[in-house]
Amino acid sequence: MTTAISLPRLKSHIETLSRFGRNPDGQGISRSCWSPAHEEARAWLLGRMKAAGLETWVDPAGNTFGRLGSGGPAVMTGSHIDTVPQGGPLDGALGVLAGLECLQAVREARVSTRLPLTVVAWSDEEGRYGSLFGSRAFTGKLDAAAIPKMAAADGERLVDAMARAGFNALEAPKAKGDPKALAAYVELHIEQGPHLDAERIPIGLVEGIVGIRRYRLHFVGEPDHAGTTPMAWRKDAFLGAAEYALAAREHIVKKGSGRSVTNFGRIELQPGVSNIVPARAVMLQEMRELDGKILARLDRECMAMARAIARKRKLKVLAEPLSRTEPARCAPAVMDAVARACGALKLKYKRMPSGAGHDAQNLATVTRAGMLFIPSKGGRSHRPDETSDWKAIERGGNALLHTLLHLAS
Amino acid sequence: MTTAISLPRLKSHIETLSRFGRNPDGQGISRSCWSPAHEEARAWLLGRMKAAGLETWVDPAGNTFGRLGSGGPAVMTGSHIDTVPQGGPLDGALGVLAGLECLQAVREARVSTRLPLTVVAWSDEEGRYGSLFGSRAFTGKLDAAAIPKMAAADGERLVDAMARAGFNALEAPKAKGDPKALAAYVELHIEQGPHLDAERIPIGLVEGIVGIRRYRLHFVGEPDHAGTTPMAWRKDAFLGAAEYALAAREHIVKKGSGRSVTNFGRIELQPGVSNIVPARAVMLQEMRELDGKILARLDRECMAMARAIARKRKLKVLAEPLSRTEPARCAPAVMDAVARACGALKLKYKRMPSGAGHDAQNLATVTRAGMLFIPSKGGRSHRPDETSDWKAIERGGNALLHTLLHLAS
Repeated sequence: MTTAISLPRLKSHIETLSRFGRNPDGQGISRSCWSPAHEEARAWLLGRMKAAGLETWVDPAGNTFGRLGSGGPAVMTGSHIDTVPQGGPLDGALGVLAGLECLQAVREARVSTRLPLTVVAWSDEEGRYGSLFGSRAFTGKLDAAAIPKMAAADGERLVDAMARAGFNALEAPKAKGDPKALAAYVELHIEQGPHLDAERIPIGLVEGIVGIRRYRLHFVGEPDHAGTTPMAWRKDAFLGAAEYALAAREHIVKKGSGRSVTNFGRIELQPGVSNIVPARAVMLQEMRELDGKILARLDRECMAMARAIARKRKLKVLAEPLSRTEPARCAPAVMDAVARACGALKLKYKRMPSGAGHDAQNLATVTRAGMLFIPSKGGRSHRPDETSDWKAIERGGNALLHTLLHLAS
Repeated sequence: MTTAISLPRLKSHIETLSRFGRNPDGQGISRSCWSPAHEEARAWLLGRMKAAGLETWVDPAGNTFGRLGSGGPAVMTGSHIDTVPQGGPLDGALGVLAGLECLQAVREARVSTRLPLTVVAWSDEEGRYGSLFGSRAFTGKLDAAAIPKMAAADGERLVDAMARAGFNALEAPKAKGDPKALAAYVELHIEQGPHLDAERIPIGLVEGIVGIRRYRLHFVGEPDHAGTTPMAWRKDAFLGAAEYALAAREHIVKKGSGRSVTNFGRIELQPGVSNIVPARAVMLQEMRELDGKILARLDRECMAMARAIARKRKLKVLAEPLSRTEPARCAPAVMDAVARACGALKLKYKRMPSGAGHDAQNLATVTRAGMLFIPSKGGRSHRPDETSDWKAIERGGNALLHTLLHLAS
């Protein structure tokens, strides 16, 4: 097979898309879904799809599609064109534009595939209004009753943001796709971690996407005077939370899979003044792991540790679950296609989990789904200096192209 | 000596004063200095002083005085009539109203003292705009240049709050008193700690007021992705702060005086979201200790621990000093007068430090100063259920009366 993508064209597309929502003074790209910058980028993308000879459409959840060929279930690729605030040029954009490039290369080379090929940009992957929104809608996971209440952290409601972009949010559940119309889904993405870059391996063959547990932990003690209450009498909610955070981190490192992770990204103390012993510490914890059984065990063990530490310190503790996603295993057929593509292109690859969430985890519930990664420089992502290099992008684009050809043949 | 205070009158005064600034629904008393409730309480207090036959005046810092007798330096007693938000009826109010009661009892019993007696209510002891404001002004410690910038946590400026109450804040330094006009200062207060109540001892003979160090500690790491960055690679500012807080607490308990205390009342993480490793933890720490040498040693040792923990975790740490008050030793003459008063009244007493700050620590820099405590029920203070019992208040009032008579004789 000699079909190959055009790096100059892909590079030009990546650079053009990166101008939509670019902040002044090197503050990266802010292109949240439904924003004017995002809607302008969508219009540009539809134009590029049409120019590439694809049939295009936008579904009621704002997912934007381009198809090459017809008849039979489609092999789909894609990602998203929204970014986090002050994000970089590759997270999401790479998967959409490399997918578009693959379809255009196939069409121009007049390669005929048994199955049609589709490229998609999923709505609001980054979750300003609800994470993985578009792929949840497409895979029938949207809770229609919750839509009127969905809102961004700053309070803007999804219904208002979508209306501004010309969509009726209440119609989004109608974006549900027919699983029989899908043969497979494969997504190219930057790793967002340091492994490929550090080990100088061009392709990550993703085995699955980690499950995530998120909790809001409340440690509750007593608001005593911090000058007059003997140390031994205090019921200090902060010290309980601090001891738990350190202990849970050690436990997950030592008793997890070796790739299990946890984070405490936020903590607030009440009443929150210098001279009163903290009566309440409210702390966010998340844990991630690819193996569902290990994740469930770590979850149970950590919660038992939190209770034991609270008991020892005469505190109360309440664990309020915030979200829970189960790990998604990639389909062997897709992993095999990625491995064969790498073999044909003589690209070294490494099997690895995805520590971040992706639309592919929703697609995995309705079709054979998988992912491939290219290196992120220094493991950086979700920041203005997120980058890879053009050679790495070209290798990734060609690996995606050959994966699609394997799956569609 | 058979002179004694009138408990019914003192009780009536305490109950009346507690109605100024009382919140509905049991939410305690909010009577911050310069507020309408505080100014109404001041007017009422001046009326009670006049009714007791005292000569009254208010100085440019709002300190409110009543004097009995003339000639020679005065023996002064008092406290403050401002409260913390949702505070209780005794913190400050007890010292002012018991002082007033003592002077009224002396006058009614026609006891003649060699030295005049003065009762005072110091402005803004609780420090809405600047802690121990009135006694700092009286003892010449106000920084005149800082007054225009002094403001409450909610942003209200001292100059505006004082103007509303009819004062010119820029004149406050003129409240500086002549040290030669003072013979001694003694302040009655609730303990605000649990010792006297737990040990059923009616009087605390205060040996000194602890020194306080306050810091804002900044631990600085890196804002990595909490899903994709290996645990061993993270530079987690929160875990550094947590380890330090636990270690500093243990160190101060084990290597302090046995009465040394520390508190971490507030911590904030940046960027403060679930899925990003905390890049910065900003934490308040305070330490209190009566022995200045021990306090200085603990301070040095804790800061060295913070640096060592930061180094081990590949973080940076910066300790920003917020305030620093040195311990104030009570004058032997005043402690002796308290001890003799307790002996005469057959009241058991316990020598103890004050873990909280008081106006007496400022007075100690210009005259012979001391304090006596009565029990706080359950050690509670700065909250609506702060209380003592009327028998304890009567004992404290009489101990103060006899202390004043000793000092003025």
